[in-house]
Amino acid sequence: MAKEATALETGLAIIYGTFVKYADSGDGGDPTTINKKELSKMITEQLPLLDEEGMAKTLMKELDEDEDGTMDFMEYCGLITGLSMILHMVISDQLPK
Amino acid sequence: MAKEATALETGLAIIYGTFVKYADSGDGGDPTTINKKELSKMITEQLPLLDEEGMAKTLMKELDEDEDGTMDFMEYCGLITGLSMILHMVISDQLPK
Repeated sequence: MAKEATALETGLAIIYGTFVKYADSGDGGDPTTINKKELSKMITEQLPLLDEEGMAKTLMKELDEDEDGTMDFMEYCGLITGLSMILHMVISDQLPK
Repeated sequence: MAKEATALETGLAIIYGTFVKYADSGDGGDPTTINKKELSKMITEQLPLLDEEGMAKTLMKELDEDEDGTMDFMEYCGLITGLSMILHMVISDQLPK
């Protein structure tokens, strides 16, 4: 019987799976990168707290290091790191000192 | 009624929660960083595929950028990015060309 995935393996699989879901959205674009339309959809569906006018444009500008107008997996990991840091700061601020 | 967390929010929460679980392990060390013993425990419990002699030492050496002997949250995000990249390469290799 296959061993059950650990919490961290599950978290990594979700992070990876979310990238694939939006990169390979079937809109005819490159299935290995997230374009601005796909990023906008991901923000609306997955990151409602960030869902505001122009957020996709802002994030793409911030994270699209090779400036090809799309987000590859490495650039997406930059987004995940940024989001994790925000989560870390928000929660650390709320912890009793 | 509170909105249900999205998949990506859940993934981020698991990634963050795993860091807190091992950093704040109650072994008297700094609850905001992962030391080598805590990292070794995390690898054994969360990353069985990487669980081999000396892995904690190797990962700490690779990721402990400020060389203080512990892994802070930013350095942990480096581990998550590295693991995600490995997952990406393994899965991409297995996809039909």
